[in-house]
Amino acid sequence: MAAIPLEKTLYVGTFIHSESLTELDICPNGMIGVDEKGKIAFISRDVKGAPIPVQEGWENAKIVRCDDGSGKNVGFFFPGFIDTHIHAPQFPNAGIFGKSTLLDWLNTYTFPLESSFKDLNLAAKIYNRVVARTLSHGTTTACYYATIHVPATNLLADICHSRGQRAFVGRVCMDHLSPDYYRDESAAESLEGTKACIAHVRHIDPDFDLVSPILTPRFAPSCSPAALEGLGKLHRDTGIPVQTHISENLAEIELVRKTFPESRHYADVYDSFGLLTPKTILAHAVHLSADERALIRARGAKISHCPASNTALTSGCCPVRQLLREGLTVGLGTDVSGGYTSSMLAECREALFTSRHLAMHSEPEAEVKLAVEEALYLATRGSARVVGLEGKIGGFEVGMEWDAQMVRLATVGDGLDLEEEKEGLVEIFGGESWGDKVAKWVYTGDDRNTMAVWVKGRLVHCRENFKP
Amino acid sequence: MAAIPLEKTLYVGTFIHSESLTELDICPNGMIGVDEKGKIAFISRDVKGAPIPVQEGWENAKIVRCDDGSGKNVGFFFPGFIDTHIHAPQFPNAGIFGKSTLLDWLNTYTFPLESSFKDLNLAAKIYNRVVARTLSHGTTTACYYATIHVPATNLLADICHSRGQRAFVGRVCMDHLSPDYYRDESAAESLEGTKACIAHVRHIDPDFDLVSPILTPRFAPSCSPAALEGLGKLHRDTGIPVQTHISENLAEIELVRKTFPESRHYADVYDSFGLLTPKTILAHAVHLSADERALIRARGAKISHCPASNTALTSGCCPVRQLLREGLTVGLGTDVSGGYTSSMLAECREALFTSRHLAMHSEPEAEVKLAVEEALYLATRGSARVVGLEGKIGGFEVGMEWDAQMVRLATVGDGLDLEEEKEGLVEIFGGESWGDKVAKWVYTGDDRNTMAVWVKGRLVHCRENFKP
Repeated sequence: MAAIPLEKTLYVGTFIHSESLTELDICPNGMIGVDEKGKIAFISRDVKGAPIPVQEGWENAKIVRCDDGSGKNVGFFFPGFIDTHIHAPQFPNAGIFGKSTLLDWLNTYTFPLESSFKDLNLAAKIYNRVVARTLSHGTTTACYYATIHVPATNLLADICHSRGQRAFVGRVCMDHLSPDYYRDESAAESLEGTKACIAHVRHIDPDFDLVSPILTPRFAPSCSPAALEGLGKLHRDTGIPVQTHISENLAEIELVRKTFPESRHYADVYDSFGLLTPKTILAHAVHLSADERALIRARGAKISHCPASNTALTSGCCPVRQLLREGLTVGLGTDVSGGYTSSMLAECREALFTSRHLAMHSEPEAEVKLAVEEALYLATRGSARVVGLEGKIGGFEVGMEWDAQMVRLATVGDGLDLEEEKEGLVEIFGGESWGDKVAKWVYTGDDRNTMAVWVKGRLVHCRENFKP
Repeated sequence: MAAIPLEKTLYVGTFIHSESLTELDICPNGMIGVDEKGKIAFISRDVKGAPIPVQEGWENAKIVRCDDGSGKNVGFFFPGFIDTHIHAPQFPNAGIFGKSTLLDWLNTYTFPLESSFKDLNLAAKIYNRVVARTLSHGTTTACYYATIHVPATNLLADICHSRGQRAFVGRVCMDHLSPDYYRDESAAESLEGTKACIAHVRHIDPDFDLVSPILTPRFAPSCSPAALEGLGKLHRDTGIPVQTHISENLAEIELVRKTFPESRHYADVYDSFGLLTPKTILAHAVHLSADERALIRARGAKISHCPASNTALTSGCCPVRQLLREGLTVGLGTDVSGGYTSSMLAECREALFTSRHLAMHSEPEAEVKLAVEEALYLATRGSARVVGLEGKIGGFEVGMEWDAQMVRLATVGDGLDLEEEKEGLVEIFGGESWGDKVAKWVYTGDDRNTMAVWVKGRLVHCRENFKP
């Protein structure tokens, strides 16, 4: 990827991104110049007239407009979504979980599927599909859990790299309390496998510019103390980030208590092995105690909120507002296939609805409910902080990289028929404010509204028959 | 519609419908013969061989297959969805509700929009869109609330009739506690407007064969005792069904208590005016007392469960399992635009997730959670009972009418790219059971999977470039 030079490009039209947790910055007549390295060189906020007035050196730049000029749609540029927690191999199980809860779900649905990734052909088929599909949903960065298999994990890294998706790819470590047919034989195997995957990523992307390895102890109970200790040391030695699960389900928490009787609590298990640091991503965090929240905050570790999964498996409702109020960093994750959807837009809806369910049991209700703006913040700026890339992605600022999606919403004409289904379900009737349009996108939009997706300035997805 | 003769048709392939609340009947090699009147003449369950063996009199029938023979998809016929509660004029507000709850939502978003339906051009644009869109989602029957405007309400009936959607169309009555700019001036106006709309439907569809009027007191507090009494008498005299709201939100319930101090409770208000009968559809029913549930059951009135709306407006979680256990009849409703979606498939997901949120606060959890099969039952068989058409629609049985949808799910090939977006998001990898396929449809499907839709044997929607 890195070798192909980019064309200087001017992105013209409305751009929208999060200014703060609660406010979107909506710029209806904007222009963003993206240089040959995929970086935002300048942002103009009040561009009018034709031809567009451009500054010196940009006269020959390519121009990409978010509207097609037909008046049949409303377009805007939006930062790419950052999925902070997704299990790539579980993708074929999306929607299949029955009435299970976490621990029986793992044994019934998940481990049998993951174990099949010893077959590289199967891995190629599924991983290609996951990356193509998440890109089509506007996911420009994903934190992937792979499986225990080194070749398949390396293949996932290759696919992300060649398709141009920014990714953290983790070879899963599990040498304890795991089924005989799917486990690491020893802590040494966990560590060696992890190192082999790190070496592979270093080979294809030496500076971890697009694809980065990530240390991935599945969750505390599935790792022996020796494996956790080894991963903690590797984390300290290399600075490579860590992802794992925490406090998803009450039975899981009880299992952790029994498995690590010497630890104060779940967070303390990770902390005691040096795995709770500013570069740690903790998925779920549904049932954290006050002491755990304080420890996580003190260590600077980050939270991936996965509402679709938490509801599907009746794990609980993560108190996002409380976490934010206490100063923790929170982003969103689809957690496929605990979560049924690989769409971060759908995950925003789930975050909004989960906050409403929590609000129904809380006082005052208004302080618990998330707004559309906040869900979008979590999916972009919040998630950027979770993966430690808040200086590079998640918003539109000079010096940041162009990880973005072009969104189009269909306007309803006077004809009696639906336009072609390719236009999607969002319908703009004409009187909507920009806030209304964004709300319609979040609640009724899907991949049909994401016309094109860029990572580091490079086009990585566009709709069929659409050329930006 | 009724005048155009139908072609005898054989629907060949897999058909799936609800056998009971908890069980789907899945027939992989089926054939259903639909006669010239759109009725199911016979069902064969084990059809093999080519050419298909057909019985006498059906040799020249048209054949419609749910699979296209390419191996690139998995198809099945499924009963059309029955939306038991949808506000057609609120369609342009789908997704726009902010952080409001019922009573402020009405004043902020809903009444201003509904009041604009005095403009027939606007009504034509929006109502055409609603009917086309709900048909595209596989909704073959809808219980519509219109507005107070007689001409626009009649237009909605016309549009349903001409597009071929089975519908109950209700002119909304509200002569009390309603804004000056949007209300009936008197009980007499409520009744006269209602009668005018009944007369119109009688004119276009004398036997209410496809389109039926429905008496529609908005909800108890918005109707004067005189209006409720008049509607009760009209219901008794004509047998025309009734739809209204009940027990959606705590502030609303308190308003009812204050407005009708002589009534025992909300259900008693309707009962005391003769509006609680086997032909009454009550939307929401979130916070019913035991006494109300007993009364509703004794009267044989029906419940429309609207989970998306109840979560969006933080109204509460309707205890569906309890209602069913106590013998009440429950169907599903989208409640656009309290609900953000006009898709009954999405509403099934919302019912499943709402039941999981309720389960997280209940013991034993497993008895509260709904299964995919149950959500689909509610959307078809349950909803058919709610609208009093269980002998005609909601399943595939000899003598019932062909209100059906053809569903196709894409199978994932070995190619590296996504197929065209028109195939939708469901991905079948090959090892899935029929139960898994149905679960994937419910959790990851959308209108792109509904290839064609029939009502009373007539094709009323099909995907662009698709001819069944």
